[in-house]
Amino acid sequence: MPMNPELLANPKAERVRHVAELANAKARRRAGRFLVEGPQSVREAVACCPDAVRDLYVQADDAANAAELANGAHTAALTRSRIVETALGAGVYVHQATPEVLSRISSNAQGIAAVVDVEELSANGDAVSWPDDIDDTDDVADTDGTDGADNMNATMIAAFWQVRDPGNAGTVIRSADAAGCAAVVFVDDCVDVFNPKVVRSTAGSLFHVPVLSMGTEEFFAWTLSHDCPVIAADVYGTAESRPQSLPDFLRGGSRNAAAKAVLFGNEARGLPEEILVQAQHIVSIPIYGKAESLNLATSAAVMLFSMAMSSHIGTM
Amino acid sequence: MPMNPELLANPKAERVRHVAELANAKARRRAGRFLVEGPQSVREAVACCPDAVRDLYVQADDAANAAELANGAHTAALTRSRIVETALGAGVYVHQATPEVLSRISSNAQGIAAVVDVEELSANGDAVSWPDDIDDTDDVADTDGTDGADNMNATMIAAFWQVRDPGNAGTVIRSADAAGCAAVVFVDDCVDVFNPKVVRSTAGSLFHVPVLSMGTEEFFAWTLSHDCPVIAADVYGTAESRPQSLPDFLRGGSRNAAAKAVLFGNEARGLPEEILVQAQHIVSIPIYGKAESLNLATSAAVMLFSMAMSSHIGTM
Repeated sequence: MPMNPELLANPKAERVRHVAELANAKARRRAGRFLVEGPQSVREAVACCPDAVRDLYVQADDAANAAELANGAHTAALTRSRIVETALGAGVYVHQATPEVLSRISSNAQGIAAVVDVEELSANGDAVSWPDDIDDTDDVADTDGTDGADNMNATMIAAFWQVRDPGNAGTVIRSADAAGCAAVVFVDDCVDVFNPKVVRSTAGSLFHVPVLSMGTEEFFAWTLSHDCPVIAADVYGTAESRPQSLPDFLRGGSRNAAAKAVLFGNEARGLPEEILVQAQHIVSIPIYGKAESLNLATSAAVMLFSMAMSSHIGTM
Repeated sequence: MPMNPELLANPKAERVRHVAELANAKARRRAGRFLVEGPQSVREAVACCPDAVRDLYVQADDAANAAELANGAHTAALTRSRIVETALGAGVYVHQATPEVLSRISSNAQGIAAVVDVEELSANGDAVSWPDDIDDTDDVADTDGTDGADNMNATMIAAFWQVRDPGNAGTVIRSADAAGCAAVVFVDDCVDVFNPKVVRSTAGSLFHVPVLSMGTEEFFAWTLSHDCPVIAADVYGTAESRPQSLPDFLRGGSRNAAAKAVLFGNEARGLPEEILVQAQHIVSIPIYGKAESLNLATSAAVMLFSMAMSSHIGTM
């Protein structure tokens, strides 16, 4: 029974309260579920991970007026009704609700929200495709670099140690997705990936790329077991190992490794020495002007895209 | 008389109210001044543009305890007392104030704030160094790429059309500074550069790089008069002119132009067709994963750094 025939009209109903509470870390842990707000994120959840979507809540008028709306007069409502259509097709349980109920669920819902199962979505290391897993031994050069990681010879992992700011965490997941990373790893004590602000900031990328959580030791053991060198992104390096400039790294042979993991540090403190000494490379972004540094989100975007573009050029 | 002997202790004093009001666009226009909050921004204002700094407000205990603080016990207070020292050396008028007064001036002051003259800081097109202005005809390759735009053969301008979000505006100024841009241009109707959130988000870069404001026609006339091609950063392009992929552009001859201006569009709407047709190139960042797009701040960082690194590699 994928479409609930009953209209949710009571903002104080127990179901509505339970959904709204998922903004809260404790409630998420207890329920094993998290909240996805707004059309872009909900659309990607429904399109990419329908099996993980437990319930979808949508403003009632949309489904009723879908035909009338198809004239394109109400873009936002039309977008929602299309998501509902996809969701119903995938067997997702859809609830129509009043605007008041949607507002109570989340002030960021823009008329649509979904509840997603953490376990169903949560990836473990097995979710990542490594170069040695790839059966395709076709040697013909593939000149179409547009449709994602399958076309890359190299597997790139984006890893973040102790990232704490939800907005940053979401933005770096989005950048890692866009740069074609095979996975994102949150290393050590990071912000909860299912925090609503993280989910919103990924703009749907949370449903495109596996996001793993690991301890520091586990991360280094995991990368080692896959012959995947770790490249620490760091401005200072250690006394023994000064950072290599990103353009020098990109011109060197190391960029051609079949797999690589780029590890970024905490927003304020970067990477500590005990982490840096375990990395195979330390690479810094050159500062050509007078700015002291770049923030985490900017550094990650520049570093990941430079490596991705360099790797794709290399394969052409 | 650079150090005001009188301690500002009344949060309701007229002077304090006038300073706090600079958070407000109307008050900034009336006063011709803007507010700079927090140690990092104030330090850069005092270090790079002391003539533009009208007044500096600092928590009183610092100056009094400077000697005692020099043991490094109180990092934040020590940082402030060093800024005060530089300011006094540069003839800036310094006011000591109680923590209550500083809090009234701004909740983001962290014990230090400055009032800066808009006209004194505001740059016009003449502030930009173009390749044909450079007297130095020394042909010896300069392998030290660390100290800024003077070492670049190419002049790069970062331009933003109708950027509206203050956080974005500040972040892109910071990225443009770090990438060694000779200037930032806000084209057409953009957010006020002197909005406190913009100023904070630049992390001091507002005092490193000239930030100009121009109308659209003026921008294209100005770049044309300097033989500076405009590269529009856009995902869609026009029916006649599809965007070139960034890696292709970087490998092509156009990247070697002595000057270039990279123009980014509005956060939500990008660049309209009537702007795109005036640009010499349209370039897009390739998306290797499933993300739909990158946000403005991320796009600008990736594009500007890719061009800067490519240009620096080219000159080595």
